Amino acid sequence: MTEVKGFHVAVVGATGAVGQQMIQTLETRNFPISKLTLLSSSRSAGKVVVFKGEEYTVQEATPESFEGVDIALFSAGGSVSKALAPEAVKRGAIVVDNTSAFRMDENVPLVVPEVNEEELHNHNGIIANPNCSTIQMVVALQPIRNQYGLKKIIVSTYQAVSGSGAAAVEELNRQTKAIINNESFEPQILPVGSDKKHYQIAFNAIPQIDKFQENGYTYEEMKMINETKKIMSLPELQVAATCVRLPVATGHSESLYFEVENDGVSVQEVKTLLETAPGVVLQDDPANQVYPMPADCVGKNDVFVGRIRRDLDHSKGFHMWVVSDNLLKGAAWNSVQIAESLVKLGIVK
Amino acid sequence: MTEVKGFHVAVVGATGAVGQQMIQTLETRNFPISKLTLLSSSRSAGKVVVFKGEEYTVQEATPESFEGVDIALFSAGGSVSKALAPEAVKRGAIVVDNTSAFRMDENVPLVVPEVNEEELHNHNGIIANPNCSTIQMVVALQPIRNQYGLKKIIVSTYQAVSGSGAAAVEELNRQTKAIINNESFEPQILPVGSDKKHYQIAFNAIPQIDKFQENGYTYEEMKMINETKKIMSLPELQVAATCVRLPVATGHSESLYFEVENDGVSVQEVKTLLETAPGVVLQDDPANQVYPMPADCVGKNDVFVGRIRRDLDHSKGFHMWVVSDNLLKGAAWNSVQIAESLVKLGIVK
Repeated sequence: MTEVKGFHVAVVGATGAVGQQMIQTLETRNFPISKLTLLSSSRSAGKVVVFKGEEYTVQEATPESFEGVDIALFSAGGSVSKALAPEAVKRGAIVVDNTSAFRMDENVPLVVPEVNEEELHNHNGIIANPNCSTIQMVVALQPIRNQYGLKKIIVSTYQAVSGSGAAAVEELNRQTKAIINNESFEPQILPVGSDKKHYQIAFNAIPQIDKFQENGYTYEEMKMINETKKIMSLPELQVAATCVRLPVATGHSESLYFEVENDGVSVQEVKTLLETAPGVVLQDDPANQVYPMPADCVGKNDVFVGRIRRDLDHSKGFHMWVVSDNLLKGAAWNSVQIAESLVKLGIVK
Repeated sequence: MTEVKGFHVAVVGATGAVGQQMIQTLETRNFPISKLTLLSSSRSAGKVVVFKGEEYTVQEATPESFEGVDIALFSAGGSVSKALAPEAVKRGAIVVDNTSAFRMDENVPLVVPEVNEEELHNHNGIIANPNCSTIQMVVALQPIRNQYGLKKIIVSTYQAVSGSGAAAVEELNRQTKAIINNESFEPQILPVGSDKKHYQIAFNAIPQIDKFQENGYTYEEMKMINETKKIMSLPELQVAATCVRLPVATGHSESLYFEVENDGVSVQEVKTLLETAPGVVLQDDPANQVYPMPADCVGKNDVFVGRIRRDLDHSKGFHMWVVSDNLLKGAAWNSVQIAESLVKLGIVK
């Protein structure tokens, strides 16, 4: 039995919604750490974060911060990753990047360990963590694809505000209180902090996540479409997405329609398959009102699946409801899980 | 020019969420009323309701209540309609029933005036008002069907709690306050008052509306499937639905995928068509973040449509986002609109 050595791990964006979850996940998973470096923008530098009972002062991220780092988990926005991930790689670190900066770069593996862990061997220093709503969908669909083939996906999402960061969660809380108390309020962040207009999210639903592209789809929708094809290595897969923001703090839900390649697949077979699938928890018992809900998934690493039923017109078509904690499997846990795979596969030594 | 005579109108369920909206809509539309009779269960009888500045005492609904009534608008639950609608018809009234009691009865027209107003001529005393989520969908799709043919619909809904009645709205408000104040609470009504289990709706999403059927679909989903085919007179139309309850008080939203029969239909043609379609308001300008949202639709009779874009894999496939006030076009306004059509077509005299 080999001794597990410890690694020098850096978290970039340590004070953000996902960064905080990354630090907590490294602790609960007891990830082998010899040294922990917590980094952020100059604005958040100096804050104190507790890890395993010890206080760490967050430092401003610079190229030199990555000297001696083995694994750097990035979640501080695309521009920070673009500027500093290559600097970390130059200094010998393997970067697991949670932003969209490198996801569609053909030299960067885009990894969900349950789906394409072996892609980690092809890294050139940077490994990309997919978009939250994409991750939970591919974890649920991969076992089905392996068994029956997969031809088409149409997804409508029900996404939580924490996907837009901690400030968006505060905005939801602030607005909710204002409406309950019959006070006025001014939307400032959602749907997209950097976009022109901002709308009420409390007691509302906003059909925009990220900015719009020329083709009428949002970037979030195009991420789901393009990232799914890349992660599953299915460039011909038909994928359509509509992404909607809800007044839910944490926990993304998805209404999925999918078509398999094989004939004669039964609902019971799909359920049996998902019951033992890695990373999946089947919650599907309509007679007893058992199905996944965002309020139940918070703080859990799994992808919860239910409401599986056959389409009434298409014998190869099925419907399914998929829920997961967007900060965990959608972000922090998938990143730490990639780090665990890097250790397990001996890619980081 | 013929003089507009007044009609004796009865509202059954006058104290409920929809009944209240019916009375208000009769007032704002200035419906020609010679006498107004407000009816309810014995529990709510005696309550006072104001119509055009005049106070009306709500009476307990009995078979005799319908003597002399020309038009009876029912919205007091399916069992009340089953018991009393035939009694009203027996006494010469035309019933517009907002419950699901008679919707799939082949002798009962199921009417959305923008779609199949002419079906009113085939009534046998009872006319059914469709399910809220069905109405807004068929209003948006009918112009498209007329122009290009319609082959397939896959819909995922984002439904407001007022569809479950006034008590469900109170439950959402109560739970929201409890969560904001960090107090405990006990779900009692949603997802379905008469079902076994009740779940948190505040800051959550519940993938169950109405009870489950044997086939894994809820009754709400089957209503959308079956009612759509009946209203559009398209028994071969492929329709699939997933219905989800949100923490929104009023305003249903729908993420629609649909396929037309014709080749070569452009997004711009669909937009141009919907811009002048009856009952439809087009709100579709992604560059300026213009799209419908439930918070904006409350109190309006229209069906709001936006986010129209072509499917990236299927040249006859399109996506669309449809929002409407579920208590108005989804219930009260559609019922009063049917009553207006009955007058206009000379069916009620």
